[in-house]
Amino acid sequence: MRVNRKAGKTMIKVGIVGGTGYTGVELLRLLALHEEAQVVAITSRAESGRRVDDLYPNLRGHYSIAFSEPDAAQLAACDIVFFATPHNVAMNLVPELLQSGARIVDLSADYRIKDAQLWSHWYGETHASPEILAQAVYGLPEVNREQIAGANLVACPGCYPTSVQLGLIPLLANSLVDSQHLIASSASGVSGAGRQAKVDNLLSEVSDSFKAYAVAGHRHLPEIEQGLGAIAGSPVQLTFVPHLLPMIRGIHSTLFARLLDTGVDLQALYEEWYADEPFVDILPAGTCPQTRTVKGANRCQIALQVPQDRDTVVVMAAIDNLVKGASGQAVQNMNIMLGLPEDMGLKQVGLLP
Amino acid sequence: MRVNRKAGKTMIKVGIVGGTGYTGVELLRLLALHEEAQVVAITSRAESGRRVDDLYPNLRGHYSIAFSEPDAAQLAACDIVFFATPHNVAMNLVPELLQSGARIVDLSADYRIKDAQLWSHWYGETHASPEILAQAVYGLPEVNREQIAGANLVACPGCYPTSVQLGLIPLLANSLVDSQHLIASSASGVSGAGRQAKVDNLLSEVSDSFKAYAVAGHRHLPEIEQGLGAIAGSPVQLTFVPHLLPMIRGIHSTLFARLLDTGVDLQALYEEWYADEPFVDILPAGTCPQTRTVKGANRCQIALQVPQDRDTVVVMAAIDNLVKGASGQAVQNMNIMLGLPEDMGLKQVGLLP
Amino acid sequence: MRVNRKAGKTMIKVGIVGGTGYTGVELLRLLALHEEAQVVAITSRAESGRRVDDLYPNLRGHYSIAFSEPDAAQLAACDIVFFATPHNVAMNLVPELLQSGARIVDLSADYRIKDAQLWSHWYGETHASPEILAQAVYGLPEVNREQIAGANLVACPGCYPTSVQLGLIPLLANSLVDSQHLIASSASGVSGAGRQAKVDNLLSEVSDSFKAYAVAGHRHLPEIEQGLGAIAGSPVQLTFVPHLLPMIRGIHSTLFARLLDTGVDLQALYEEWYADEPFVDILPAGTCPQTRTVKGANRCQIALQVPQDRDTVVVMAAIDNLVKGASGQAVQNMNIMLGLPEDMGLKQVGLLP
Amino acid sequence: MRVNRKAGKTMIKVGIVGGTGYTGVELLRLLALHEEAQVVAITSRAESGRRVDDLYPNLRGHYSIAFSEPDAAQLAACDIVFFATPHNVAMNLVPELLQSGARIVDLSADYRIKDAQLWSHWYGETHASPEILAQAVYGLPEVNREQIAGANLVACPGCYPTSVQLGLIPLLANSLVDSQHLIASSASGVSGAGRQAKVDNLLSEVSDSFKAYAVAGHRHLPEIEQGLGAIAGSPVQLTFVPHLLPMIRGIHSTLFARLLDTGVDLQALYEEWYADEPFVDILPAGTCPQTRTVKGANRCQIALQVPQDRDTVVVMAAIDNLVKGASGQAVQNMNIMLGLPEDMGLKQVGLLP
Repeated sequence: MRVNRKAGKTMIKVGIVGGTGYTGVELLRLLALHEEAQVVAITSRAESGRRVDDLYPNLRGHYSIAFSEPDAAQLAACDIVFFATPHNVAMNLVPELLQSGARIVDLSADYRIKDAQLWSHWYGETHASPEILAQAVYGLPEVNREQIAGANLVACPGCYPTSVQLGLIPLLANSLVDSQHLIASSASGVSGAGRQAKVDNLLSEVSDSFKAYAVAGHRHLPEIEQGLGAIAGSPVQLTFVPHLLPMIRGIHSTLFARLLDTGVDLQALYEEWYADEPFVDILPAGTCPQTRTVKGANRCQIALQVPQDRDTVVVMAAIDNLVKGASGQAVQNMNIMLGLPEDMGLKQVGLLP
Repeated sequence: MRVNRKAGKTMIKVGIVGGTGYTGVELLRLLALHEEAQVVAITSRAESGRRVDDLYPNLRGHYSIAFSEPDAAQLAACDIVFFATPHNVAMNLVPELLQSGARIVDLSADYRIKDAQLWSHWYGETHASPEILAQAVYGLPEVNREQIAGANLVACPGCYPTSVQLGLIPLLANSLVDSQHLIASSASGVSGAGRQAKVDNLLSEVSDSFKAYAVAGHRHLPEIEQGLGAIAGSPVQLTFVPHLLPMIRGIHSTLFARLLDTGVDLQALYEEWYADEPFVDILPAGTCPQTRTVKGANRCQIALQVPQDRDTVVVMAAIDNLVKGASGQAVQNMNIMLGLPEDMGLKQVGLLP
Repeated sequence: MRVNRKAGKTMIKVGIVGGTGYTGVELLRLLALHEEAQVVAITSRAESGRRVDDLYPNLRGHYSIAFSEPDAAQLAACDIVFFATPHNVAMNLVPELLQSGARIVDLSADYRIKDAQLWSHWYGETHASPEILAQAVYGLPEVNREQIAGANLVACPGCYPTSVQLGLIPLLANSLVDSQHLIASSASGVSGAGRQAKVDNLLSEVSDSFKAYAVAGHRHLPEIEQGLGAIAGSPVQLTFVPHLLPMIRGIHSTLFARLLDTGVDLQALYEEWYADEPFVDILPAGTCPQTRTVKGANRCQIALQVPQDRDTVVVMAAIDNLVKGASGQAVQNMNIMLGLPEDMGLKQVGLLP
Repeated sequence: MRVNRKAGKTMIKVGIVGGTGYTGVELLRLLALHEEAQVVAITSRAESGRRVDDLYPNLRGHYSIAFSEPDAAQLAACDIVFFATPHNVAMNLVPELLQSGARIVDLSADYRIKDAQLWSHWYGETHASPEILAQAVYGLPEVNREQIAGANLVACPGCYPTSVQLGLIPLLANSLVDSQHLIASSASGVSGAGRQAKVDNLLSEVSDSFKAYAVAGHRHLPEIEQGLGAIAGSPVQLTFVPHLLPMIRGIHSTLFARLLDTGVDLQALYEEWYADEPFVDILPAGTCPQTRTVKGANRCQIALQVPQDRDTVVVMAAIDNLVKGASGQAVQNMNIMLGLPEDMGLKQVGLLP
C-alpha cells in the first residue's frame, strides 16, 4: 500500500501531548484530512518509539510518525499543542509552554472550572496552576468564539457539558425556564471512559446493559452549572444523571425544564439562535436526534418538544462524544485560534448505518 | 437428545393465544420449568401446524407441541389463558371466553385503562368490550395482589409502566413529592417493540445508537398516570420520555420528582415499603441498578438518591421488559390467581455476564 | 446550521438509481466529500419527493436534493450512473441507458457473472440482458484496472467476493495452493442484508448472537469461483460458509488453503503483490486484521500465517462491506473510469474506536 | 425482598475456589437452582469478606455467603470442590486436597493435557503436579462418562475444545475424514477472556468489530488434538483459528473436513451417535445453529452440511462458553460423580431473544 502524504507546502505544526487514548487517535483521524495542519509530535511515555499506526492500524498509510517522550522544546516549536491527557497533566506543563509562546488547546478538565477551590473539591487535589485559570478561555465556540480567537489557552468542554449546554442555552439566555430545577438525563457510549484497563469497562461488564452512575455527583456537574450560570446571569441548579450505554460512541442528553412562559415558539427560537452555527443543527419539529446520525461528525443535533402542551419542555441533544464532545471541538477551536475556516478538517459526514 | 417431559401428575392446563411473539416464547421459557403448569394449547394463525421448537430452537427438548388455529373450546377447557397478542385482539375474544368460565391473563393493553374513551384516544379505535373493563384487575401484584387472587380477568401492566410505577409508588403513597411535575426518562431494549418486520427495528437501524421516541405522547403515559393517580389519591402529571437502547432486553427508568419534604429517610422508606415483596429488590444506598443483573429474572431492582442534598429525588428502576415487564409478571399473576406459591417457575437468576 | 455547498466549478454529474438503501446512503456520504463529483439525481419510487437528508439525517447540511421518480433522460444526462438497487433492476434498465451514452457502475449482482445460465441458476430467474454481459467489466480494480478505465459498464463485486478474492489471488496467481479445496469462513455485519423489513434482521433476532447461513450455497459462491478461476487459469472449488455478525458494518474472511510448496515467503509475496495498490494493505507478519480498523474506509487489510509450520495457510482479509465491499469500490471504479485520481473522495480514515 | 433459601434437608456441600470470575458467578447461578447442592464456601483472596451478591447483584436473594480466604480444612470438608481459577492455581492445591479425600472438578487447564511436557510448552511453565495427571479424567461426559463417575479429579474441557470435539467426534470415530487436515474456524464471545482488567477486552476495543487471534497457536489446540486423537486412534492435525465476537456469551465452531467417503448419511450418523445424550442436540438437516438459542443453557447444538455435494463436510457447533463450555459442564460432571440425575440444576432454557 502506498503511503498517503500531504503535499510539500508549509503546514501548521501540531503537537499532541498524550496521544495514546481515544481523544488522541481521534485527533489523528481528523487531522489526517486537515488541509493545513500536520502533526509533527505526539508524546507518550508508555508507547515512546512505537509508530502511531502500529497502535492504531486505522492510521496506516496516513501517518509515519511514532510516539515520543515529551520534549518541551519540540512542543514549544509547534504552532498549536493539544493536551489529550487525563486531568492533572496539563496544569503542570501548560505554564511553561505558554511562556515559550505556544498556543494550547487542552482537552482535559484542568482549566475548565474558573474557581480553583471548586476544581479541587471535585477533582480531589490542589490545582497546580491556579494563576492561569483566568486567562483560559472555555472552548465552546457557540458561546465564546471571539475570545477563543485571541486565546493562548483554550479549555475544551467536557463531552456531557457540550451536549447539555448547547441544549439549554437558548432557554436560559431568554429566561424562559425555572433555572433552579433543571434536569439532565444523559447517556454516553463507553469510549467516554477512556482506554484505561478497568474491569468496569470490559465488554462483558457493560455490553448488553444500561445503568446510571455517579448520581451523587459527577465532575461535569460544576462545569455545566458554571457555563449555564454565565448564560443565565445567575447561578443555576441542575440535577445531572449520566448513564452508560452499551456502545462505543455517542452522547445523548434528554433535558427537562419547567417553562415560565408556555406561549413562546421554542422551535423558532432554537432555529434562530443557532442559525449561523456550522456545527449545531436544530432538527425539524416532531423529530428526535439519534447518536448514529452524528457518529464521527463534529455536530450537535438538537430537537425539542413540550409533551401534552403542559409546562415542561424536553430538549434532546446528540453528539459524538469523541468529536463535538472532544477532539472535533478541539480542532474547531484550533481553526478559530489560527484564523482558518472553522470547518476545515471537520466536514466528515456521520457514519450511518 | 432426549426430550425432557414433565412427570405424569395432573397439571394446570395453560393456553396461550398468539404465541409467536417475544412474550409468547418467554411464557414458554418460564412455563417449561413451572412445576404445576403445562402448556396445552398455543395459537397462531400464521404459524399454525409448526412446532414451537422449530420456530424457537431454544425450546427443543422442552416442548413437542405445535402452534394451532385458535379454538374457543380448547381455550375454554384451559385453567388459565394468556393473551400474548398485540392490542385489539383480546378485547374481541375475552368476553366469550369469560362466559365459558375461563380465567384470563391479558398481556396486551386492551384492559389496562379503565376509561374506554381514554383508551380510544390513545389507541385510535373504539374499545370492543368496554363493559368488561370494570371487572378487569390491573395486574401489578405489588398494588392489587388481593384483587388479582379473585379475578377472572387480569390486565398485565405494560413494561414501562411496571418500572415507573414501582419506582414512584412509595413517594406518591406518602405524598412526599410534587405529583404534578413527575419526570420519567426511561430506556428500553428493542425486544419491547416486538417481532414485527419493521425497518425501524433492524439491527442496522438501532444498533450502536440511542434516541428518544414518542416524546409527544407514548401509549404507556395514560396507563402510568392512571396507576399513580390511584396511589396518590388524585390525578398526577408525568413527563414521560422513552428511549431506545441498542440491546435486546431490559428497561431502566430514571425518575425525577421534587421533594415536598427533604427530611425523610427515603432509603428506609423504600426498603420497608417493599420488604415483603418477592420480586422488588431495593438496592443498598449509593448503588445503581443495571439491566444486566435482572436479565431473564422476574425482578425489579430499585435504587434512589437525592443528589447534592437538594430537593430533587432520583429513583432508578430496572427490569427485564420481557419478564417482570411482561411474561414473568403474567406468570406471577397466574400463580396468585391459582393460589400457587407466587414465585413458582420464577426463581431464575439473572444471566450475568 | 449553514448548508455546506460545493463551490461553483463544473462538477461531474452523478446519478444514483435506487438510493434509499445502505449502499445508496453510503454513496451519498462518500460523494459529499468528493472534490469533482456532484449528485444531481437520486431515484426512488417509494420515497419520491422526500429529501435525502430527511430520510438520512447524517446528510443534513451536505445535500438539499430529494429522491425522484426514475427519469431516463435525466440519468442519460449524467456523466456516471450508479445502480444501488437489488438484483433484477439494473439488467432491465442498463441496455437503454448505455445506448444513450451513459457510463454505468452497477453495485448489484446483475452483471457480475459472465454465464447467463449460471446467473439464472443462482438467482432463480432469466437474465434480462444477457447480450450485455460480455461488455460488462468486473469492477475489482486490483485485477481489472485497465479494462475498467475504458468500460461503459462496470459490475461492482459483491462484498464477500471482494474480501475472498483479494485474500486468495496471490496464492492462486502463483499456483501455490490446492485450488480444488479452498475454504472461506467469512463473517459479515448485518448491513450486508440491506434495509428491507425482515424479521430475520431485527436487532432482537441477530444481536448478541452468531450463526452461519446459506451453507448449502450462497449466491456469492459462483462469483468468487469465476474470479478466482480466471486468476488460476482453471476452475477452482471453494467451500464458502458465510456467517452473520451481531454488528452493522464489516466483513472478515478467514481463508484456508493447502500449500503445494511450504518453502515460499508468503509475507513477502503478498507485500510485493499489493505494493502499488492504494486500498489493499498487507499487515505486518504475526498480526491479524480487525474490521474496526477499516470501518468507514475504502480499504482491505490482509494478514496471513502458516500455523505450526504445517501445510495449511490461513489468510485473513477485512473490509467494510459498505465501502470497499460496495460503495467505496464503486466510487473507486468511477474515478478510474473518469481518469480521476483513484483515491479522490476515498481518503477517509477508519473510525476507531 | 425476601431471601429465597433452600429447604432444611441435607445438601451436598460445595466449595468453589476462585469464585470472582465469570465461571465462578456462573457456577453460583446454576447451583442456586440445584435441588441437592449448596455452596458452603467460595474463596477469593482479593474479595475476601465481601458478600457474593454485592459483587454480583443478580445473586441477591439467592445467596447470603461471602467470599473467604482459602481454607484447606473447609474445602476438605466439602463433598465436591470446583476450581474456577486461572491455570496454575489448581495444580498447586489439588494434590493436598485429594489426599484429604476431596473430589475435585477443575475448570482450569491444569489437568487437561496428559503430557506434562506438552503442557509446559504451551503454558510456559513447569507443571507443579505431573504425578497426578494420570488420574485426572478429562471431563467430556459424551466421551468419558463412566470414568468421570468414578473419578476424584475431573479436568473440565476448555470452551473451544468442547465445541470442536463434539462437532468432529462422529466423523473421526468412524474414520470418515482426512484426520491430518482438519480445520476449525471458531468464534467466541468476550466472556471467554475472563474478568481481568485488560485494555484488549474493553468494550471500546472489541465491540462492533471482529478479528481472528492467536492464529499461530492457541493453547486449546493441543487439548483438542489430544482429544480427537484418542477418538481417531492416531494423531490428528487441526488448523485452529479462534475469533473474537462483539458479544458476551457464546461459541460457534465451523468445522471443515475432507470426506474420505461421500456416500455416508451423515445426518443420520450424528443423530444416532448423540441420541442418548441429554445435552447434545443435532438440529434438523438444512438448518444452522445460533449461539442465542443456547444462551444460558447447558447444551451443544450441532448441524452439518456437505455444500454442493462435493467432498468437504461442514459441521457447525454452538454452545454457551460459560455453560456447556465451562460451569454447566462442571455441574454436569459433578452430577455424574455424585450419582445424581445428570441434568439436575441444568434444565434452564436458552434465553431467546
